[in-house]
This record gives sequence, structure tokens and C-alpha cells, in this order.
Amino acid sequence: MAAEEEQGFRPLDEASLLAYIKATPALASRLGGGGSLDSIEIKEVGDGNLNFVYIVQSEAGAIVVKQALPYVRCVGDSWPMTRERAYFEASTLREHGRLCPEHTPEVYHFDRTLSLMGMRYIEPPHIILRKGLVAGVEYPLLADHMSDYMAKTLFFTSLLYNNTTDHKNGVAKYSANVEMCRLTEQVVFSDPYRVSKFNRWTSPYLDKDAEAVREDDELKLEVAGLKSMFIERAQALIHGDLHTGSIMVTEGSTQVIDPEFGFYGPMGFDIGAFLGNLILAYYAQNGHADQANDRKAYKKWILKTIEESWNLFQKKFVELWNKHKESNGEAYLPDIYNKPKLLSVVQKKYMTNLFHDSLGFGSAKMIR
Amino acid sequence: MAAEEEQGFRPLDEASLLAYIKATPALASRLGGGGSLDSIEIKEVGDGNLNFVYIVQSEAGAIVVKQALPYVRCVGDSWPMTRERAYFEASTLREHGRLCPEHTPEVYHFDRTLSLMGMRYIEPPHIILRKGLVAGVEYPLLADHMSDYMAKTLFFTSLLYNNTTDHKNGVAKYSANVEMCRLTEQVVFSDPYRVSKFNRWTSPYLDKDAEAVREDDELKLEVAGLKSMFIERAQALIHGDLHTGSIMVTEGSTQVIDPEFGFYGPMGFDIGAFLGNLILAYYAQNGHADQANDRKAYKKWILKTIEESWNLFQKKFVELWNKHKESNGEAYLPDIYNKPKLLSVVQKKYMTNLFHDSLGFGSAKMIR
Repeated sequence: MAAEEEQGFRPLDEASLLAYIKATPALASRLGGGGSLDSIEIKEVGDGNLNFVYIVQSEAGAIVVKQALPYVRCVGDSWPMTRERAYFEASTLREHGRLCPEHTPEVYHFDRTLSLMGMRYIEPPHIILRKGLVAGVEYPLLADHMSDYMAKTLFFTSLLYNNTTDHKNGVAKYSANVEMCRLTEQVVFSDPYRVSKFNRWTSPYLDKDAEAVREDDELKLEVAGLKSMFIERAQALIHGDLHTGSIMVTEGSTQVIDPEFGFYGPMGFDIGAFLGNLILAYYAQNGHADQANDRKAYKKWILKTIEESWNLFQKKFVELWNKHKESNGEAYLPDIYNKPKLLSVVQKKYMTNLFHDSLGFGSAKMIR
Repeated sequence: MAAEEEQGFRPLDEASLLAYIKATPALASRLGGGGSLDSIEIKEVGDGNLNFVYIVQSEAGAIVVKQALPYVRCVGDSWPMTRERAYFEASTLREHGRLCPEHTPEVYHFDRTLSLMGMRYIEPPHIILRKGLVAGVEYPLLADHMSDYMAKTLFFTSLLYNNTTDHKNGVAKYSANVEMCRLTEQVVFSDPYRVSKFNRWTSPYLDKDAEAVREDDELKLEVAGLKSMFIERAQALIHGDLHTGSIMVTEGSTQVIDPEFGFYGPMGFDIGAFLGNLILAYYAQNGHADQANDRKAYKKWILKTIEESWNLFQKKFVELWNKHKESNGEAYLPDIYNKPKLLSVVQKKYMTNLFHDSLGFGSAKMIR
């Protein structure tokens, strides 16, 4: 980051945040403006590792304000990390929000100098999906919603819909989010396969398993292929961290948050992250079972959700493709590929490859 | 391109080029400077489709000056094409020249406003390799030299040698060379498979063959995969147009020119272009045979050169990998992959995949 950008930065506290909101119409108006601003209450709720997160409420409305600091928050300034991740988070939210507003919270305001974003307050009873899965709550629309989100965000940012010029412009812009990509490379594709102080497992019970992973040459060969694909293959603007901690849910609503790892990468990395985390949740259920609830029905629901998520995703993705087969998409030009039989063969091959990639990335995420 | 950049541009003629050279020390010094400049003679020799090319000679030396115009020269201003291609040509020449100076002509000067480059004059008896192949001349060092060029330029610009940050910086920079990439997409991966005014074949004798290509669904399915890989996969800084018309040769020297299509793409596209063009030259020999020379021995030499080019490339590439296996390369971290048996399995898989890609791209280039 350029030095002059650093100069304007300051971490906000509650008092300076209040002043900032009052001076920023895009935020003040969401809180009713005028006299309503006198009723503002601010609560810091960031339980993540990376940022300050404030819930700001007035008598007339509520917003969330998120500010990135130039280091990993839970470790302190010993682990520096670019604040520019906030810019890529806001950019990805806006782009995904344009394509799938139903499942992406709205961004009201972004200030690059302060790495500060004002966005929709995702109100209770929304909770983080991971917590819902631990509590054993069923979300009947989860597969439908997530397949919708993935189909739309991935299809419309790929060469199936865009021409090469737009695609490469996007690739160039998000190439600068490289620090976040490197973090993923390290924790997903490297650390599990070597001795690293950042690895955590249940010791000593799983010592042998951790060692077995480090000694499994065939696995390491496969993982290397996935890692290179992760870095080299600019297939679509992916969320980049689509685990169950990046999804907020109620029974009727699903909101995808925290795309600060967003960049042009392989679609299978998002799909695999989501499916892989559901598979982990499935295996974790035995640990949550008790006399009142053996979790058997719940495990069945998770399995069904995994299956439906892929099946619905595949169906919706191909539907989008058929609907937009006369678009500017560069990968399969209409005058060459729009013959019914050929197009369906092309689509089948594409989805088979994508499923294969997704399983690979899903496995890598599960090992991690 | 920004309007202000266009403003400074003007096409040079011999008189204004002479004045420019005299005012540019990096060029004037190559021609002896001072009184030597009075002896300068300028000859326009551009027989290509895209640029003006001048040979500039004085009593003390010679250089080549190349200027790009904002359209395809042979078609006129009806086919606009960004002058920025000259910037990417100069950038690729400098980068490849740093990595393999033996086979890359030196760039003395580049002026982005004028899209003008001063570079080494590749002196007679160098000729374009394609002409040498038509004339039936053997180049005993060709396979050795080209394998050297490809191994060095591809290895050192890949994730085998560079970390992700450097790699993504390069990807972002060359993403802007998208107009040239789109030209390749069109003429290599699209036009041969549809009716296009830009297609040329020997009509009516090959009408049926051209139609057969347009109707071959299995082929079109494979080509679509190659096209997506060409756009999406940023594996190394490739030349982008490595046919036998981009190589100048004598018996003892091989110089690779014209990388204006340079960008981060799949390595196999360069290797395949070179090998595919040699295969075409092999089949073209029957047309050049006459009573004095049946070209049988020459065809044997071409086959040997094809085989040696790949075998030597593979050998040198793996040697570079072994030599630099402790580098910053992100793809295979030393503490995970530097076990003798594992590393050789990894390398074998990598080279097998690369050979597969090269054959695919080589075939696509041959069809085109």
C-alpha cells in the first residue's frame, strides 16, 4: 500500500465512529438522519480474527460498520495484514450483490482510506450457520438459497457470460488481493502437510493422523495440483472463504458475508468449501448427540442438504447457461456451439469437471 | 488507451526517425554517435502485418527500429488495434532477454508514447526459420537452442520459481494485453470452426475438409477446453506466437522475435506452437521436392528436430527445477516436496501434463 494511503488511516473508536457516521449521508440516512442520530447506540461485536465490527442502532434503523486493521486482530500487530482486504471485501460484496441481491447484504458505503465499510445489519434471529449446525437446527431452504448464490455469482463472473476483456479486467483488479490468497495457500494447501506452529489438532490423540497426512505422498501430489489450480486458474470471481462461518441464516433467509478473500479463482473452491464444511458438520454430529436427541434425523437432513446443494446448483447453473447462451460469453461462441446436441455434451463435460474440482477442493478444506 | 497518450503519438517517416535517433542517446550511441550519425542510412523492411520496421545503419553500427501503428497495417485503419502491443512486446523481450539472452535480441530503447522500440539488428545471414524450412536448410542447433529458450523463459516465469505475489503482479500487468489475446482466441480457437471471412483454404480442393472441421463436434469440444485454458490459466509469461515465422536463424544462432502477444498463459501454447509448426513444415516438404532433391533426408531431420526439441526441453526444464528447488517457488514448497522420490513423481506428473497440453495446443495451431 502506498505511504500516502497509510497517512490518512486511523482506527476509529465509538466516539470517532459516531462523528464519522453523522458526517456521512450514506450512513446517517440509514439511521433516520436528523434528530434520530441523537439516539444512536454502538456495540462492538467483532468475534472474528481480523476486523472491528460495530452494530450501530438508532430509533429509526440499524447498520453494521466494519473496519479492517493493518494486522490480524487476534494475534496483534505481530502478524501484519494489508487493510486492502476491506476494499476487496466491499468490491466482492457489491459485485455479488448485483448478481444475487437475495443472499448478499447490501453495502451502503465504503471508505478506502479508512478501510471502513457500512453495510446492512443482518438482524436477529439470523445466526452464523456453523452455530445452527452445532445446535441441530434444520434450514429447509439452505440448499435452495446456497445453490442460487453459487450458480449466479459463479456463472455471471465467468467466461460463459463475459467476454475476455471484461474478464481480464476483473482478474487484474483482484490480483492485488494476493496477500489474502497467500494466507489461503498457506493454511489450506501447505501447513497441513508439514510441521507448522499454526497447525492445531487434538493432541496426543490425533498425533498419528497428523503425521500420516504429512507422510502421504499420493495425497501431497494431488494437493499440489489443487494449489496450482487455485493460484493459476482465473475461472470466476469466487467468495474465497465460503465455509459455514461465512453464512448467516434463519429458517427463511440465507446471507453470505465476509468475502475478503474474493478473487478470480476456480469455481470448485467455493463449492467445495461449502460442501466440505457440511460433510464435517455431519461427522461432528455424533459429538453433539445426547439422550434427548441422537441427531440421527439431523444427520439425514445434512446429507440431503449436501446432495440437494450440488444437484440444485448444477440445475440452476445449466439453466442460466441455456438462458444466456447468446450472451457475450467467450468460452463457447453461439455460432460454433449452439447446436442442441453439442451444447448438452459441452455442458455435461463442464459440470463433470466442476464436480471433480469441487470434490478435490472440498477434501483439501476438510483436511485443513 | 487514454486520450492524452494518443495525443503524443505520431507515425515517424525516415526524416523524423533520423531526428529522433540523433536526439536519443540510447540509440545514437549504438550507431557510433557524433560524426558517424551523418552516415546513417534507413531502410523500411516491414513485411509483417502489423508494424513499421526500419533497419538503421551507420559506418559504426546498425540497429532496428520498430513502430506500431494503431491498426493492422496490411488491412489499413479499417481494423484498429491497440499500439500498446508494442509495450508488451518490449516488456516480454526484456524479461525473456534477462532469462535467456542467448536467444532473445536486446532492446536498447522503448518509447511508450510513440510505441517505438530500438533493438538489436539481427544481421544476415540470419533469415526467418520458415523460409529456411521451405529452402530445405538444416539447422543442427535449432532443437538445442529452442529447448533452451523455452525451458528458461517458461520455468523462471512460473510458480516453480516465483512466489505468488510476483506471479500475480506479472499476471495483472500482462492482463492488459487482452486485445492481442482476443486476436489469438479468434483466429486459433474460433474462426476455423465456423464460417468466417478471415478463413483461408485452398478452394475448392479443401472445401470438404474445412466443412468437416466445422462439423466435428468432438474436436470442437476439445478445442473449447483448450480455449478456456488459454484465457484462464496463468502458468508462465509465454511468447504467445511462437511459430517458425517468429524465429530468426543461422546455422549457429537462433533468435526469437516478435513477442507482442506475450502474456501469462499456459506453457503448452508456446511449446505446441513451435512443435506444431515443425510438423506442418514436415508435411509441406512433399510440395517442395523436385528431381534434384526429394527432401527425404530433410524430412528425417525435421522429425529428429521435433523429437529432440521436446526431449531436450523436458531434460533442461527438470534440471532447472532441481537446481532451483530451494527457490521461492510457490507450487511445491521445499519442506513438503523435497524428498527425492516424491519430487521425481511430482516432476513426472508435471511433464506428462505439459506434454499433453502441448500436443493439444499444437494440434489447434496446425488446424488453424
